[in-house]
Amino acid sequence: MTRALAGPYATLLLAGLGAEVIKVEDPRGGDLARENSPYVGRDGVTVERAHADDVSISHLSRARGKQGVSLNLKAPGAQQLFQDLCRNADIVVENFTAGTADRLGVGYAAAREANPAIVYCSLSGFGADAPEGGKAMDVIIQALSGAMYTSGDPDAPPVRMGIPIADMLAPVFAVIGILAALEQRHRTGQGQHIDVSMLGALTSFVAIENWAALAAAGMPARTGLTVQRLSPFGVFECADGYVALVAVHEKLARGLFQAMGAPEMSDDPRFASRDARVANAVALEAKIAAWSRTLPTAEAVRLLEAQGVPAAPVRHPEEALTDPRVMARVETMAIAHPRYPHQADLRTSGIPIRFSEARTGFDETLPIAIGEHNRQIYGDLLGYDAARLEQLAKQGVI
Amino acid sequence: MTRALAGPYATLLLAGLGAEVIKVEDPRGGDLARENSPYVGRDGVTVERAHADDVSISHLSRARGKQGVSLNLKAPGAQQLFQDLCRNADIVVENFTAGTADRLGVGYAAAREANPAIVYCSLSGFGADAPEGGKAMDVIIQALSGAMYTSGDPDAPPVRMGIPIADMLAPVFAVIGILAALEQRHRTGQGQHIDVSMLGALTSFVAIENWAALAAAGMPARTGLTVQRLSPFGVFECADGYVALVAVHEKLARGLFQAMGAPEMSDDPRFASRDARVANAVALEAKIAAWSRTLPTAEAVRLLEAQGVPAAPVRHPEEALTDPRVMARVETMAIAHPRYPHQADLRTSGIPIRFSEARTGFDETLPIAIGEHNRQIYGDLLGYDAARLEQLAKQGVI
Repeated sequence: MTRALAGPYATLLLAGLGAEVIKVEDPRGGDLARENSPYVGRDGVTVERAHADDVSISHLSRARGKQGVSLNLKAPGAQQLFQDLCRNADIVVENFTAGTADRLGVGYAAAREANPAIVYCSLSGFGADAPEGGKAMDVIIQALSGAMYTSGDPDAPPVRMGIPIADMLAPVFAVIGILAALEQRHRTGQGQHIDVSMLGALTSFVAIENWAALAAAGMPARTGLTVQRLSPFGVFECADGYVALVAVHEKLARGLFQAMGAPEMSDDPRFASRDARVANAVALEAKIAAWSRTLPTAEAVRLLEAQGVPAAPVRHPEEALTDPRVMARVETMAIAHPRYPHQADLRTSGIPIRFSEARTGFDETLPIAIGEHNRQIYGDLLGYDAARLEQLAKQGVI
Repeated sequence: MTRALAGPYATLLLAGLGAEVIKVEDPRGGDLARENSPYVGRDGVTVERAHADDVSISHLSRARGKQGVSLNLKAPGAQQLFQDLCRNADIVVENFTAGTADRLGVGYAAAREANPAIVYCSLSGFGADAPEGGKAMDVIIQALSGAMYTSGDPDAPPVRMGIPIADMLAPVFAVIGILAALEQRHRTGQGQHIDVSMLGALTSFVAIENWAALAAAGMPARTGLTVQRLSPFGVFECADGYVALVAVHEKLARGLFQAMGAPEMSDDPRFASRDARVANAVALEAKIAAWSRTLPTAEAVRLLEAQGVPAAPVRHPEEALTDPRVMARVETMAIAHPRYPHQADLRTSGIPIRFSEARTGFDETLPIAIGEHNRQIYGDLLGYDAARLEQLAKQGVI
């Protein structure tokens, strides 16, 4: 029972690990991600939906490998269907606003009543115990988490991260919680409620750096493209892009000076030791930038790597997603509209885990329409007969 | 067998979920994170280490709840100790450069020989199958993943994320892989090798956005503090800081105009519909900024929330880490030097998952010195007698 990104990404990860996932959607509209432009379908990628079976690329990416049923949770009798689903399930995931699932009669209490072994995971902005408040969008959580003031120059505005990190981090922790609860269930036979907050997940990541201690020690925390207390460390401009390099230790610094064609810098008292390099970081960074700005990025990387200095080009997402290493490991993967597979060349997230004795991946299944798999799930799995399905549809329950 | 951040964060999460974690360190130096300034000890927080039992705050944060043994993997006989540890363990985690663990005789093959049920997880920059290359630092992986070109303004330099996201994301997926392998082990009785790449984990996050499709549809991907295709959406300057707000839908946009004291904007043809607001995003954002810049952030948030518009102040990390909601849920938590608990007020990451039938958290244990718990682990757990321990120490094995 998930919508948007946080919840669907949690169940996507579970699907990729081998779970059979059933996506439950309101027959009156379904997951709002279905309305995210751009779409893909018989005409390829389009900004607007032109045909009934065009699907949002967001939906295609997030719902792949899942079966889909329709269920209007506000309709009389919906709770019965929900509990029947729970009796045939191991895990429930929902990301309604805190309190909503309980109010609709599909909270943990209802699930447990149907199946005491159920593992029930709630994903919300501020936690299941938060007083009901506004919706928790990614940008709101990024703002509250402190993350926006960890990037960028010390005096610059905050930085909104272009990856929806708050939406994606909470579900990763949700999956950890779910798998940990399954492990506990092997010992107790009982399920439990897992409660993950977007704000908590992202703040816990921010908290791994010792912000207060850095401040207490007089060390700047927010340092932009380079980190002067580790100088030379960071990102430098090239003729056609940017290069990232790390030369914190003595041997690497000497390698950098060699790569720069300036081995004599090793004897310059300003740069001859780690402490000196940190103390003269501004002058050192200026020298590096004056060198790197004259070179294509690939040439700078080549020269640095030849000296054993860790270095990399700063790549754009399109290039990163098609890195041969990443494609070979299925950390990114092709997706296609099941009916028009050759109409577009699309690539999305894979499961970034390799198992020696198992494979990750997704079935070809996709709920193109809401309730696409009602017959398979309500009919074949729950055993509802055709007459009952017809009546439920007529009553607007499914 | 983990060092720096990626590996230790994986085992920290496992410790927080209840695992008994044994940190294996080289007696000749140990985890380099022990050398990260600042330190904490009898004199409080200091930039330099003054006393033998001062500990790096990085080490304090990452090694809490773990026992520590010393083991020189290059010493003759070390493999015997490693295999004895494996016979008493469920999980091994290592983050050496790819290929190193095998070369040292402590790779998956050696672990499985000792214990076929062992789940063995390798964390590396580019995957266990990568040809041996340079070290994979966080900034190098950020550069390669495309993440640096997702934040910031369209024509601005790339943005280095201040959170070590590459170092932290791979271990979260490692824990998912480990727990999934434990689930599989309940069915097969066998362990397996888990292989997680820093580049793959971060690239898979970047890949959730449909970069190629956005480009194909002519939509800008990198949009800085606001997203004009969702206008009004993003971060706006206030008199004393910044506010994040989301007013994509009709009702929210009207609420925003009310909050701005300009309800007539709802009738302005430039702003009267969602399509119009997107088409006139530049003018709309200028009007919002002209309003927000006159107000303290708290006042802007108050006015927006009163109209039901999702809004939040952009907070600094220190403020975010002490959010009462986050502290109450132990998503951040206090840490202290075990011997000098009152000398500093430090706060770090908790486990951002709440269980109804279990608690997360950390024992008071900390390997202050390398090999702190040799007697408990090699003696009590493995049953080595005092004479043997003495000899191993004398030979430099432990």
